[in-house]
Amino acid sequence: MLKLIGFKSITNPITIIYRLFVLLSLLLLITACKEDSSKKKSPEVISDSHPNLILTQNAVSDIKKELGNVPIFDATLSKAKEEIDKAIAKGIDVPIPKDMAGGYTHTQHKANYSNMQKAGVLFQILGDEKYAVYVRDMLLQYAEMYPTLGRHPQPRSYARGKFFWQCLNDSNWLVYTSQAYDCIYDWLPKEQTDYLNKTLFRPYADFLSIETPQYFNRVHNHSTWGNVAVGLIGLVMDDDELVQRALYGLSKDDVDLTKKDNDGGFIYDKDGKAGFLANLDQPFSPDGFYTEGPYYQRYAMYPFMIFAEALQNKKPELKIFEYKDGVLLKAMDALLNLTDADGEFFPLNDCQKGMSYYTTSLVSALNIAYYYGNQKPELLSVAKAQNKVQLDASGLAVAMGIRDEKAKPFVKTSIELSDGANGDEGAVGILRYNDSLNTMALVMKYTGQGLSHGHYDKLSFSLYENGEEILQDYGLSRYVNVEQKNGGGYLKENKTWAKQTIAHNTIIQDEVPHFNGDFATGSKNHSEKYIYDVSNAKVQVMSAKENNAYSGTDLHRTMVMIKEEALEKPFVIDMFRVNSDKTHQFDLPYYYFGQIIAEGFEAKTPSSLSALGSKNGYQHLWKEASGKSNTESLQFTWLNNRKFYGLTTATKTDDTILLARLGANDPKFNLRNDPAFIIRRNAKETIFATVIEPHGNYNPVTEKADGAYSEIKEVKVLFNSEKYSALSIDLKSEEQRVFIISNDNASDKASHILEVNGHTYQWKGTHYYN
Amino acid sequence: MLKLIGFKSITNPITIIYRLFVLLSLLLLITACKEDSSKKKSPEVISDSHPNLILTQNAVSDIKKELGNVPIFDATLSKAKEEIDKAIAKGIDVPIPKDMAGGYTHTQHKANYSNMQKAGVLFQILGDEKYAVYVRDMLLQYAEMYPTLGRHPQPRSYARGKFFWQCLNDSNWLVYTSQAYDCIYDWLPKEQTDYLNKTLFRPYADFLSIETPQYFNRVHNHSTWGNVAVGLIGLVMDDDELVQRALYGLSKDDVDLTKKDNDGGFIYDKDGKAGFLANLDQPFSPDGFYTEGPYYQRYAMYPFMIFAEALQNKKPELKIFEYKDGVLLKAMDALLNLTDADGEFFPLNDCQKGMSYYTTSLVSALNIAYYYGNQKPELLSVAKAQNKVQLDASGLAVAMGIRDEKAKPFVKTSIELSDGANGDEGAVGILRYNDSLNTMALVMKYTGQGLSHGHYDKLSFSLYENGEEILQDYGLSRYVNVEQKNGGGYLKENKTWAKQTIAHNTIIQDEVPHFNGDFATGSKNHSEKYIYDVSNAKVQVMSAKENNAYSGTDLHRTMVMIKEEALEKPFVIDMFRVNSDKTHQFDLPYYYFGQIIAEGFEAKTPSSLSALGSKNGYQHLWKEASGKSNTESLQFTWLNNRKFYGLTTATKTDDTILLARLGANDPKFNLRNDPAFIIRRNAKETIFATVIEPHGNYNPVTEKADGAYSEIKEVKVLFNSEKYSALSIDLKSEEQRVFIISNDNASDKASHILEVNGHTYQWKGTHYYN
Repeated sequence: MLKLIGFKSITNPITIIYRLFVLLSLLLLITACKEDSSKKKSPEVISDSHPNLILTQNAVSDIKKELGNVPIFDATLSKAKEEIDKAIAKGIDVPIPKDMAGGYTHTQHKANYSNMQKAGVLFQILGDEKYAVYVRDMLLQYAEMYPTLGRHPQPRSYARGKFFWQCLNDSNWLVYTSQAYDCIYDWLPKEQTDYLNKTLFRPYADFLSIETPQYFNRVHNHSTWGNVAVGLIGLVMDDDELVQRALYGLSKDDVDLTKKDNDGGFIYDKDGKAGFLANLDQPFSPDGFYTEGPYYQRYAMYPFMIFAEALQNKKPELKIFEYKDGVLLKAMDALLNLTDADGEFFPLNDCQKGMSYYTTSLVSALNIAYYYGNQKPELLSVAKAQNKVQLDASGLAVAMGIRDEKAKPFVKTSIELSDGANGDEGAVGILRYNDSLNTMALVMKYTGQGLSHGHYDKLSFSLYENGEEILQDYGLSRYVNVEQKNGGGYLKENKTWAKQTIAHNTIIQDEVPHFNGDFATGSKNHSEKYIYDVSNAKVQVMSAKENNAYSGTDLHRTMVMIKEEALEKPFVIDMFRVNSDKTHQFDLPYYYFGQIIAEGFEAKTPSSLSALGSKNGYQHLWKEASGKSNTESLQFTWLNNRKFYGLTTATKTDDTILLARLGANDPKFNLRNDPAFIIRRNAKETIFATVIEPHGNYNPVTEKADGAYSEIKEVKVLFNSEKYSALSIDLKSEEQRVFIISNDNASDKASHILEVNGHTYQWKGTHYYN
Repeated sequence: MLKLIGFKSITNPITIIYRLFVLLSLLLLITACKEDSSKKKSPEVISDSHPNLILTQNAVSDIKKELGNVPIFDATLSKAKEEIDKAIAKGIDVPIPKDMAGGYTHTQHKANYSNMQKAGVLFQILGDEKYAVYVRDMLLQYAEMYPTLGRHPQPRSYARGKFFWQCLNDSNWLVYTSQAYDCIYDWLPKEQTDYLNKTLFRPYADFLSIETPQYFNRVHNHSTWGNVAVGLIGLVMDDDELVQRALYGLSKDDVDLTKKDNDGGFIYDKDGKAGFLANLDQPFSPDGFYTEGPYYQRYAMYPFMIFAEALQNKKPELKIFEYKDGVLLKAMDALLNLTDADGEFFPLNDCQKGMSYYTTSLVSALNIAYYYGNQKPELLSVAKAQNKVQLDASGLAVAMGIRDEKAKPFVKTSIELSDGANGDEGAVGILRYNDSLNTMALVMKYTGQGLSHGHYDKLSFSLYENGEEILQDYGLSRYVNVEQKNGGGYLKENKTWAKQTIAHNTIIQDEVPHFNGDFATGSKNHSEKYIYDVSNAKVQVMSAKENNAYSGTDLHRTMVMIKEEALEKPFVIDMFRVNSDKTHQFDLPYYYFGQIIAEGFEAKTPSSLSALGSKNGYQHLWKEASGKSNTESLQFTWLNNRKFYGLTTATKTDDTILLARLGANDPKFNLRNDPAFIIRRNAKETIFATVIEPHGNYNPVTEKADGAYSEIKEVKVLFNSEKYSALSIDLKSEEQRVFIISNDNASDKASHILEVNGHTYQWKGTHYYN
């Protein structure tokens, strides 16, 4: 018992008092629990059939044995109890639906389903009937209200819900409430379950599916929630029609196949499949990458994993965790790899920055992946950081694993995650560097479109140092659940800015987005991975091609992370080759943060600012400065968060350099005012060759600027053809490095000879660096 | 010994290994030390006269007794040894002076004096002659070079130095080197000290004083450094002429009294005094506030305190620590109070943000204040956070105090610090709130000009929450020691922007700065404190008047920090009364940070941006949006660092609201692109009445927006005359609060009756709140 509260290493008296309080509470709980089982009918006695979805009867029995001896589980339980006791004291509030996200009725209904789910678990584990009463009474209020409701009065969604402005939130409600219902099902008299099934749950499931096909039947995270909501309540009610509908989608006869959702998504996927399994087949690659991107993968992981757990418990014959070669378990690993050093997701496609693997949905998903997978000890270290567990068998296993000190560090190394149902539609490549002081992560996107949440940013990248963004991906334009900002929903700047190509660190031809910003065209295409080679930790290479973003133009980007012995941190080589059938204007932006230390070119700053263009996102950028490069190698230096960075690029003397800042044509101040450094070149065939280098830091207390100057003197293009691209890097140390990439042969066996400026380079494999 | 390395609470193996290493090193040191005293002549044996400035012979003897048993002292010593051993291994480098700040020769000469000072101390404490040899050899190189040097080749300073571009840095050199010289003085043969005195030190002291009077003879932090440099070397050489010159300045016959420095400062202060004592008399108020502001106080504290220590040791009859009623000790307390929750200085006047009490100069100053003052245990907690000490008797005392667990928390509460030599030239007022979770600090400036580092910002304020800036003071415009930015010196934007009134949260009349930006006029005037009453922790009031910034216009600002029981955090009432003899345009800016959540008025955003004006700082602001308030109470909401803030202000319906962003006319990108909310009103007599409220937070992991809306519905002016100003605050809870201030009677005994809108308010004292 003492181990639980970990006296050994505690010195803070408040911590001690708090832990004593937790200990005391748990002792009281256990006593109460034992009293209950003697005085009242314990749940198990009532029936042997429920709960059997997430929290099972066996789990309840195991949990009771361990309770008081599994610190993280105990603490999570104690917190849930505290929360629900407060909610019960406050009383039940089931208001008539009225508000948008962030508003009062929205927030209340969200709190209700979350409270019911927890109350159900508390009833099972602690055996105190007050929790069952709370769930029952609330459900009865919902059942009374439900038949009186039309669709939600807020007209904003393509699929308006009942309790919420969109069916998505209603599905959230049903996913959580199904679990609560399962926990009290056997405790309720049959006439009450009959009544609830008939009046509330079955009609609600039909509403979310048959009555809203363009919501239910897509391959999309929304539909996954819809499928799982219908499937879980089907499992609770033993309503197999609903379970089949959840797994396989609606009958085609019921659906208008030409309909699209408000994001422009299709109602049926390419193969005409729908339902939970189609949502597993299609958006997940064999590596577990979810094509919408990590933010929505995080969101979808909860329904995916919770339904999988329920299916495993109730329909083990489906072997759902083995489905598609164990894709759900791989997805969990993929998702953890798609985070920066702080556990925050890389904001590929629509993603609100700051979302991380500390979110509750990933606590559940990780616990389930641990328990139903191979009990990987690396997952335990993440769970330990999360510091809470799911209150079921999976959470118990995790808490016991942590207690028994089985955790091992989850080290994120370089990884490539394929996209596409078959893993052949491009990938996300991540190059990483880790030492005892620094981590760097370079993320390059050469995937498919990513469904309706996809951005038009083929071959874009972002760069991280120790969890800080150095060169950013903007993410989405939305303040989720901030009511003042369009009810917490997507802002129109998500389309006019965030999804646009110019909002990303990639090439834009003639100020037109990739695929002309057309969703259907974008969805038909994907980039091609070309090289991903991290066999040499000092020279890690990824390279990909995109030949469909612009008709008649081939794009090929190679990114290399180099760790030179003499330099403290790695630098990044960025070679963006463009080959077109005619001359175009190419823009290559770098979205840095912070303050310019040296602009590196003769920047003309206008006396009044105008937008950089009139459409395709350019209308949102103020043109703060511009000038000709007038040199063959230009160096731009900036300071961010007390660290110096340099971008050294091989320019043509008549390249235009633009300094831009976001914020134009933004009447509601929805955009962040972030800056960009843009290289603009008119060319037919060219290569943008750049080195990005973190090279120093500033200490405002000692007022010392260490490494304020780049270690790189200049970068030059030595050679560029369809066969090879070569650049030279002159270091301040007077040494020179040369990097060469083979542009048309990705074999690591091929031998190459290239003569440049009288020097012969000879190597084997895809690239040369020396 | 075991206590020293604190095994008890260490769990990290690296820490253990490191501490074992420290322990081992110290054991070796002590052994070496003992061997030395037997084999070689120990320093004490040579002579009984040196060192006697900072590190004294008694102190050396005390230190040797405690060594190995005073963790922070031991660790500081060990680090100094490691550093100097490295420097010795690298060899001596005394380059011909050439570069600006941040450049190679500048940085090398800085490193040299710092290394010599430490080497001197190491020689004394450890007795190893190699440290004395290092200092001697370096001094000989300097002595050889010195006679060959003219003034430094960089022409930027009004007072070019020898080793550095400005005499200020040369004085730094001499302040540190004097200490090193003192430590080896008796070890050197007399012919060598004679040579050094004659060839290097006396000429150098004359150069910094007689040859550079406009540097040496001012009341200014520069001159303090000059005085102390000359004084310390005078003490070392027993050259009383230099000591007198340091204490009392140059003879007037030597000086052109009309000369000014490059900042526009005068060579003599108003009373015709100069030297160290004049620099103690004049810029320090009786409360220990230094008129230039905390950043320069921090910079000056080192020479002030180190010379005081030397005087106390060598000329105790001066009783320097009792001078001006103990102003040096009070200054230390004042300075600590002028920091935010993270120990960073409030950026009043010229100040580089991020500078904090962790700077080495404040380690010395604090140690000296502790030792020569009353050994205040509160100082020990700051010293503990600093985690290093000065290697002398004072540092030993601090380290022993910490070791013996004497430290008490240094709690920063509300405080008013008077300005002016006699404390009658206005003040800085700080209102503070502390609870277990939150701290808030409201800083209002109603001081004198602050010498040449002063800004034109009478009655300006800044607001902090937990060490974060909510409404900022811009600070200076400079990147200290970043060579790319104007050699690390002041940028021209310091004059065109940072010193300007519009750069601050205060009233600007007709777009003209206070005192028309004229230094002489500004220096003749100061604001008047009116009320400072923090007797009621729930309603803390400060109020001040400024009648000279604009001829014919009286300014009166009252700021109140209110803590309502029902609200989690305090809010701030800001009442800015303006009374003029004719109608003017008044601008009142609030420099917030972050993202606008709701602008609160119909903002028109232009399709191209122009500057807000053409001069006086307005040329640097882009006008991002503007509109009429069209209401009597306007609410502006923003989100910064995941927290929501509201500014609710009583507007006139034809007030213009401007949203501006810094960055216009900034060809070298020297300015930060910070935003402002500006209220613009044409009036003769008016009051700007505003409530500023931190009211919620956003969690991007749970995606919950708690308290996204203000708790305040509206703010209205109930009454405004020369006698009283009254405002009402309508809370969301439907309650109303009224605040009234007496504008012409600051007595806390006076009784008042005011009838407003049929309601009679009756109270005693300066203000009413209910």
